[in-house]
Amino acid sequence: MAERIQSDSSESSPLLVVGSVAFDNVITPYGEKEHILGGAASYCSFAASYYAAVRMVGVIGNDFGDEYLDRLRSRGIDLEGVQKDETGPTFFWKGKYHENFNRRDTLDIQLNVFEKFRPDLPESYKDSKFVLLGNIHPALQMHVLNQLEGSSFVLADTIDLWIEIEKNALLDLIKKVNLFVINDTEAEELTGENNIILAGNKLRKMGPEIVIIKKGEHGAILFHEDGMFALPAYPVTELRDPTGAGDSFAGALIGRLASQNRTDFNAIKEAMIYATCTASLTVEAFGCDRLESAGVNAIKERSEKLLQLISLD
Amino acid sequence: MAERIQSDSSESSPLLVVGSVAFDNVITPYGEKEHILGGAASYCSFAASYYAAVRMVGVIGNDFGDEYLDRLRSRGIDLEGVQKDETGPTFFWKGKYHENFNRRDTLDIQLNVFEKFRPDLPESYKDSKFVLLGNIHPALQMHVLNQLEGSSFVLADTIDLWIEIEKNALLDLIKKVNLFVINDTEAEELTGENNIILAGNKLRKMGPEIVIIKKGEHGAILFHEDGMFALPAYPVTELRDPTGAGDSFAGALIGRLASQNRTDFNAIKEAMIYATCTASLTVEAFGCDRLESAGVNAIKERSEKLLQLISLD
Repeated sequence: MAERIQSDSSESSPLLVVGSVAFDNVITPYGEKEHILGGAASYCSFAASYYAAVRMVGVIGNDFGDEYLDRLRSRGIDLEGVQKDETGPTFFWKGKYHENFNRRDTLDIQLNVFEKFRPDLPESYKDSKFVLLGNIHPALQMHVLNQLEGSSFVLADTIDLWIEIEKNALLDLIKKVNLFVINDTEAEELTGENNIILAGNKLRKMGPEIVIIKKGEHGAILFHEDGMFALPAYPVTELRDPTGAGDSFAGALIGRLASQNRTDFNAIKEAMIYATCTASLTVEAFGCDRLESAGVNAIKERSEKLLQLISLD
Repeated sequence: MAERIQSDSSESSPLLVVGSVAFDNVITPYGEKEHILGGAASYCSFAASYYAAVRMVGVIGNDFGDEYLDRLRSRGIDLEGVQKDETGPTFFWKGKYHENFNRRDTLDIQLNVFEKFRPDLPESYKDSKFVLLGNIHPALQMHVLNQLEGSSFVLADTIDLWIEIEKNALLDLIKKVNLFVINDTEAEELTGENNIILAGNKLRKMGPEIVIIKKGEHGAILFHEDGMFALPAYPVTELRDPTGAGDSFAGALIGRLASQNRTDFNAIKEAMIYATCTASLTVEAFGCDRLESAGVNAIKERSEKLLQLISLD
C-alpha cells in the first residue's frame, strides 16, 4: 500500500475524485516540458493519496499508456472509475507561464475524448462519503452528485471558464456542495465583490456552508459558520510550475478530512495546513513529478515548518 | 494622559519618531477630502501613542494651526522636536487612488518648508532607546542616528522614491538599523529578487538583523534570525483611504516594543498583531480620523479577532 500520513481516526473514509485527465505541454521561465501527465483528477488524486484511499473517475484516450496508469496505481489509487475511450487521444492542454508566474496563456487546447465524457460512477463508488468534484463542466459535476447514494461531504472546485460561460449551472451546483474552493479572482468574478472578505461571506449565502478562497502565494482564507481562518502559503523559494497547485490543495484538503472522518471547523483548519504543504511540493517541479515522489516525510516536515511560521511562540 | 494599551513591563521606554508632517488632498473612489493632517510622522506618532510615550520630530509651516498641534497633544505626543518654519507653508501632497485601491497617482507635491528640513534632535530626545525613522530622505534618517547617545533599537521605513534616486544612501542607512520595514514591491526593487522569501533573506544580509515585508491586504512577513513569521492582514471590509497604513503599522509596531521594552522574536510577533490592527483602523477613514478616534478598546477587540483568525483551535 502506498504510504500515507497517519490518521487520528479508526474510521477513515475512501474519497471519490472526479475530474479531467490530461497530457500537458508546459512552458515556464525555467524551461519547457512536453507530454506531462496532468488534469485536475490526476493532481487531486495524487495529492489525496497521501491521506486517504482514492477512487478516481475520469477519461483517458488511446494514447494513454500503462506506464501512466502504473504511476497512479503505485500511489494506491483505485482506477475502476477511469474510462478508456479508444476512439481518440487524451485531453491535451498547452500553456505558457510568464515571468513571475503571475499570468498564463493557453496556447492550445484539444478536448479529444474528454468532449464526450460522462462521469458515470461504478456501483462500488456510489456510497462514497467524501467527494471531490474537480474542475469540469458544472453539469457533469452535478451528474456525479445525482448518482451518489446516502449523504456525502462534497467539495467542488471550478475555474473562471465556467463562471464566464456556465454561470447558472455553476450557481445550481454550489447550492448542493458543502465546501466550495475558488481562487480570489474567480470569487470576485462570481460575486461582483472586490473585497475578499465580502466575497467569501457572499459565496456562503449562495449555498455552500463552507468556502475557501485561495490566494496563491498569499495563502488561503476559510469562511465557516464558526468563524474565519487565514493561512499564509508555504514559503516556496523554488517555484517551477504552478500547474495543478489548486488541484493538489483541494485533493489534500478533502483527503485529510476523509482520513480523519471529520468535517468540523478545526478539522478543516488542520486539513488546510496539509493542503498548503502538499500544493507547495507540486509547484516545485513540472507536472506531478515532485508531488508523486515527495513522500510522507516531506509533507510532515513542511507542516511542522508552516505551523512554526504562524506560531506566536 | 492619553489612554494606552497596557504594557507588561514596568520599564516602558519613550519612542522617538522622525518623519514628514503634511497636509494631504486625497481622492478615492469614495470621495475627496482636502487639507487632511498627514505625513509619516503624524501617522506614526498617532499610532505609537496608543502604546508608548512619543517624542515627535518634524517640520511644520506657517499654515499649521494650533488645532492640529492640539490633536497631536491630545494623544500625549511630545512636540518639543517639531520645528515651526514661518517662511512657508507645510509640506503638501495630493494623490488619487484608483478603483480597488491597487494603484495611486501623485497629482501634486509641494515640499515647502520640508525642503530645508534638518531633523535636529532636542537634547532631551538624544537618549531615546527606541527610534522610528519614518520615510524621509535616507541622509536625514542617518543624521538622526548620528545624534543619538547610547544604544538604541532603530526601525527604518522607506518608499520607492529613495530606492530609485538615493539607493546608496539607503543601503548605507539600513546597515545601521535593527528593524527595516518595507513593502513587497519595494523589497523586490531593492534586492532584485521577485520571490518575497528570497528578498527578505537577502535584505537581512544587507544589514538589518530584522526585516518585515508588508504585503498590504495580504499581511506581512517577519524575517528574523530565530525564524520567520507570517501574519495575515486584519479583515477590513470598509477600506476608505489607505494613506498612512504603512506608517501606522510601523508606529504601532515599535510603539508596542518600546512599551514592552523588548525586541526579541516573540515580542516582535506580538507587536505585529497590534501593528496590523492599528493600521486596519487607519484605512477605514480619510486621513488620521479613525486612527485618532478609535480608542484602546477598538484596538484590543481587533487584536482578539486577529488572534482568532490565525488560531488553529
